[in-house]
Amino acid sequence: MKNQTQDMIIIDALELSNWDRDFLLLLKEGGVTCVHACCGLWENARETLTKVGNWHRFFKDNEDLVLPVHKGADILTAKRLGKIGIILGTQNTSALEDELALVSVFNQLGVKIMQLTYNNQNLIGSSCYEERDSGLSRFGKLVIEEMNRVGMVIDLSHVGEKTSLDAIAASSRPVAITHANPDWIYPSSRNKSKEILTALRGNGGMIGVCAYPHLINGHQTTLEEFCQMIVETVEFMGIDHVGIGTDLTLNMSDEFLAWMRMGRWTHNVEYGAGSKDNPSWPKWPEWFETPADFPNIAQGLYQQGMSKDDVYAVMGGNWLKFFDEGFKAEKELAKCVSLI
Amino acid sequence: MKNQTQDMIIIDALELSNWDRDFLLLLKEGGVTCVHACCGLWENARETLTKVGNWHRFFKDNEDLVLPVHKGADILTAKRLGKIGIILGTQNTSALEDELALVSVFNQLGVKIMQLTYNNQNLIGSSCYEERDSGLSRFGKLVIEEMNRVGMVIDLSHVGEKTSLDAIAASSRPVAITHANPDWIYPSSRNKSKEILTALRGNGGMIGVCAYPHLINGHQTTLEEFCQMIVETVEFMGIDHVGIGTDLTLNMSDEFLAWMRMGRWTHNVEYGAGSKDNPSWPKWPEWFETPADFPNIAQGLYQQGMSKDDVYAVMGGNWLKFFDEGFKAEKELAKCVSLI
Repeated sequence: MKNQTQDMIIIDALELSNWDRDFLLLLKEGGVTCVHACCGLWENARETLTKVGNWHRFFKDNEDLVLPVHKGADILTAKRLGKIGIILGTQNTSALEDELALVSVFNQLGVKIMQLTYNNQNLIGSSCYEERDSGLSRFGKLVIEEMNRVGMVIDLSHVGEKTSLDAIAASSRPVAITHANPDWIYPSSRNKSKEILTALRGNGGMIGVCAYPHLINGHQTTLEEFCQMIVETVEFMGIDHVGIGTDLTLNMSDEFLAWMRMGRWTHNVEYGAGSKDNPSWPKWPEWFETPADFPNIAQGLYQQGMSKDDVYAVMGGNWLKFFDEGFKAEKELAKCVSLI
Repeated sequence: MKNQTQDMIIIDALELSNWDRDFLLLLKEGGVTCVHACCGLWENARETLTKVGNWHRFFKDNEDLVLPVHKGADILTAKRLGKIGIILGTQNTSALEDELALVSVFNQLGVKIMQLTYNNQNLIGSSCYEERDSGLSRFGKLVIEEMNRVGMVIDLSHVGEKTSLDAIAASSRPVAITHANPDWIYPSSRNKSKEILTALRGNGGMIGVCAYPHLINGHQTTLEEFCQMIVETVEFMGIDHVGIGTDLTLNMSDEFLAWMRMGRWTHNVEYGAGSKDNPSWPKWPEWFETPADFPNIAQGLYQQGMSKDDVYAVMGGNWLKFFDEGFKAEKELAKCVSLI
């Protein structure tokens, strides 16, 4: 199988794993070209600096294997050098606190993707887990305008229905749902409605289908079922608008799980996309236990009868185009030629 | 006079003024190519983000007149476009707090110069105003190593004698005194001893001679006296090691003066380089009241009998070479060709 993916660009639009050299070697084994790595969940501006600083150290200590990605061309460089390109992003806008100018500051630090909300309402809007979602706030509109200006990609994966629709309408540029699935295939408050995905398609945006067990049918979901979902998503969205965003969480501690779900905002146990009966890190399907298994997904798509061009588009070609354009500052857009 | 400086690159290695469009027009009138602008005095990491964010806003709002400088080539671009290049720097390492990784983070934010201490002892060393200076701390040595690695210039202008000597010895790359004078010409604890300047010269470093009235003989210092000092400094240091760092403070408030001198660290009145009899912002010499007066300095140097090449070197050529090399990451140094 591996030979069939050697010239493929594979991009995973979200991973939250425990980054060490062993993990990098698994990515390399899976032929992964580029990963959007989570650089923050609930952290404020100061704490996010520490996270970025830790990534700088990781880049330095592993420069034979990794390459920080700030623009589309960096992804091609990573492919050429056989390194893993890493895009930093936060799954929240908590790093901005209440300060509009910090969009541009964190963009300069290579935080090229921000999810507008994590699991809770924040200064910008509401999450998919809030009971009510009153949509994009006044500050939220300005943040979107500023993200559009500087070339920071807007991510709606955990964002609530109304805030998502507002954000898509407000954004002058395509937005992303880096890691979620259609909710009519796998019902979950974290998955996305036809209304959102219709708006996303109209906006020129992209969805990264997600293998996080709680967002599919658990670890027993077969590769065939997962790839059928991809085919259905492509049928709904169009071939240019679908990629992969596994939400992989490998070798993470229970302590981190508690931080991920409960941050500092509650003293009660929260289960996120899990449940009381399934409170810990989920077991992953046997066809995707580590990023070394990426070729299985390509193989599964071929088995669905997908063409080579379409498999390449879904596995990474679409994200490459999307990030190449999305990471450019607005004023660069007019004068630049696409990589593809 | 202006015609004589049109092809000259003029670099001011420190200004602390109230940056607005009027000030930019004065810089343009003076033919200034590039300024090292003070982006922090006592601010911690979080507060420095706000300062950097304000600068981003200033760059955006005045993009017809300014250009942020991250590398030597940006200074040449500024000259070619007739814009003012701006290098951000902090006059303290307070932005790093106790976190080594923040050197690389602030370097990525374009803070290309950091003064190791402002007027007080800090985590790294001591200032020229402390009674005792025990030299570079353990953390200080690591910070210098990291600044050397990433290509952030070490500034010793307000740093104490022992810490300065330690820093020069510890640094594997040339360091700067962006704004101070030889103390045997103008005695002041802020000016620099023969011992420091000898070490600086040996290190390949540079000094920017300073027109701040408290560091010369007040506003009555004549242009001739100031330029005589430059000639003497060049004689001592060698022509390649001297530039200008005016420390200009135009249109600043008394509130800012209090912050500059007293930060949050004292409730007593402090006078910095001033005194009880001269507590406010100093009056500047009539030959340097605004940056539009830069050509006067070039004129004064010619009147001292300095050659055209030497005048060009002191007015900006030396800083251009120094910053071009100094802003490169260590690993870039070997493979890059100098601009000059």
